Amino acid sequence: MRTEVSQMLGIEFPLLAFSHCRDVVAAVTNAGGFGVLGAVAYTPEQLDEELSWIDREVGGRPYGVDVLVPAKLDLEDGGSSGSSGGLDALLAAVPAEHWTFLHDLFVRYGVPLPDLEKAKKAAPKGAGAQVTRQGALDLIDVSLAHPIRLIASALGPPPALMVDRAKEAGVSVAALVGTAEHARRQVAAGVDLIVAQGGEAGGHTGEISTMVLVPEVVDTVAPLPVLAAGGIATGRQMAAAMALGASGVWCGSVWLTTEEAETPPHVKERMLAASSRDTVRSRSRTGKPARQLKSAWTEEWEGPDSPGTLGMPLQLIVAEGAMRQINKVAETGNEGARELANYFVGQCVGLMNTVRPARQVVYDMVEEFAEALDRLNGLSGTG
Amino acid sequence: MRTEVSQMLGIEFPLLAFSHCRDVVAAVTNAGGFGVLGAVAYTPEQLDEELSWIDREVGGRPYGVDVLVPAKLDLEDGGSSGSSGGLDALLAAVPAEHWTFLHDLFVRYGVPLPDLEKAKKAAPKGAGAQVTRQGALDLIDVSLAHPIRLIASALGPPPALMVDRAKEAGVSVAALVGTAEHARRQVAAGVDLIVAQGGEAGGHTGEISTMVLVPEVVDTVAPLPVLAAGGIATGRQMAAAMALGASGVWCGSVWLTTEEAETPPHVKERMLAASSRDTVRSRSRTGKPARQLKSAWTEEWEGPDSPGTLGMPLQLIVAEGAMRQINKVAETGNEGARELANYFVGQCVGLMNTVRPARQVVYDMVEEFAEALDRLNGLSGTG
Repeated sequence: MRTEVSQMLGIEFPLLAFSHCRDVVAAVTNAGGFGVLGAVAYTPEQLDEELSWIDREVGGRPYGVDVLVPAKLDLEDGGSSGSSGGLDALLAAVPAEHWTFLHDLFVRYGVPLPDLEKAKKAAPKGAGAQVTRQGALDLIDVSLAHPIRLIASALGPPPALMVDRAKEAGVSVAALVGTAEHARRQVAAGVDLIVAQGGEAGGHTGEISTMVLVPEVVDTVAPLPVLAAGGIATGRQMAAAMALGASGVWCGSVWLTTEEAETPPHVKERMLAASSRDTVRSRSRTGKPARQLKSAWTEEWEGPDSPGTLGMPLQLIVAEGAMRQINKVAETGNEGARELANYFVGQCVGLMNTVRPARQVVYDMVEEFAEALDRLNGLSGTG
Repeated sequence: MRTEVSQMLGIEFPLLAFSHCRDVVAAVTNAGGFGVLGAVAYTPEQLDEELSWIDREVGGRPYGVDVLVPAKLDLEDGGSSGSSGGLDALLAAVPAEHWTFLHDLFVRYGVPLPDLEKAKKAAPKGAGAQVTRQGALDLIDVSLAHPIRLIASALGPPPALMVDRAKEAGVSVAALVGTAEHARRQVAAGVDLIVAQGGEAGGHTGEISTMVLVPEVVDTVAPLPVLAAGGIATGRQMAAAMALGASGVWCGSVWLTTEEAETPPHVKERMLAASSRDTVRSRSRTGKPARQLKSAWTEEWEGPDSPGTLGMPLQLIVAEGAMRQINKVAETGNEGARELANYFVGQCVGLMNTVRPARQVVYDMVEEFAEALDRLNGLSGTG
């Protein structure tokens, strides 16, 4: 298939797969799509290791990296303080009542308590570090030292630093947007490719649906190519997205129930059983509205005992360590932990009902796309 | 174009136009689509008059009617009391604090107060009557006395009475759904056609987006045909909906800015200027979540002084008379009234930027549909 995006990225089928799991990234790239590794959960050293592994697996086939760049990256404040100094300040900024709420939550659900002091110290290494200025810059540098073809910014316009470094390295820059206004800012920031992500998407997401957002963004940024994201898990949805004017699609949720996915088994089970009604847009995991499975976790943060969610990255720091403990305990069969456990996923979770290898998802989407197009041509054939 | 729906309804282009305006209904039907008159705002006598007018205009071409049937229609309670008795009971059930809030709202926004006592009495005639048991039955009987081809139920499964009477009259029955679960119930109730309406739609709407809901419902009710609704205002979106498996589309919002539309001029202006971000799902006009233009009205009902919204039809009774007065005053240029005024519309309001005759909207969608299909075929032509 020949679209602006398949040509830009050197791929056969303009299906981009966002995943935190290197196996999914490599499998999709090797199947003729384009894997994009979500770098937010890694330290620079870990990321380097993951990308080296992917390099070996894909044998020169194209792939990319997605980083979560804080909006303030270009600002001076915080820039002078080193990585660990900034993190101590972040930890100190979490109010005591939030740790207390977390403590009580664990007790109420019968989840063995982690060492809270240790959890506080551990959390930022896992999740908070990269969303500081230095953390994000480090991840960008590590990424550009590998033969990636695309670097994507998941939140807000990429800072000039990122765009400049990527262009020097001959790497295309993509950015996710949830409104036409944001798309305009991304174009001004110099990105090569816009990912228009509808509110039905998993993770950080806005409120405008894919069906409305994609044509709006396509018209706003033309002739820049647009990928459609949000709710897309099948080839007929990919055909729909491209009928809207997209040059390809960006899928995240659909990989979470693949064989390769590192989704915790109890969460994978819930995703396979879930309908499209079982997600909610909640600030409870990162501090920004992010769509995820409804669970006791999302309900409790909205409940009467909740101290309210914090901003990003403070809420991320509070939630990340807790969720790691919850998942660990849930795997032992603890009922309370299973009630609390959740993960980011879009409304298309209702369409994710079988476990397939990631490459099979790509092949199925190629086939379903062709079927959808045949059907459309058949319908309009006769008056 | 030959789809299950175009054959069922005897039309050329499976574009259904929901409108409260008879001119739009007739224009769309005469342009090769299928107009559906929203009957909720009419008394039985008025509806009879509107349908007689449409009959003369369309010269035998097919059209339909949409009724708002309360879920309790089949239940015994309220059924024995006559229309006016039921309404007095409804009026008495509106708490005094809601009338007080309304009164204060008018004062704060500098909108001349209507005679509150008169407004209370007037409201149900305009809006509440039809959502009582007898009111809905009367509208169904009036509709079936005209040569309609389709009767649609906008809320919940159509009662057995409605399905039976329609089938006797040889009229197809459609029902709007917002989830796959609701679609299953509609199939059980005996409908012929499902309208899967995504959360981006104007008016009463759920939370699952069109991109996800349509394939989910198509798979759930197969081989029953499905129309896609929610966010659709262009031919490329219609192509997208049909790539998802729909046999046609159901559009409501796009007609509100046509030449024929009876949308108040100040509201039409705001719609033409609005972006897709300018709508909100709010209970403030009917008591059920309904997407509409954001305005001071929707904000105030969410605000700190609000007594909270009532259920349906009580909130409808409170809101309808007030909104009529607001619109009347807004037309004189009153700023406060213009801030309060709003109307039901979907996120596709961001794509509605010009005033066109309704027939031109149909012709444009036919052309855009063909262009989208050509584009898709062009993309997939070469590997």
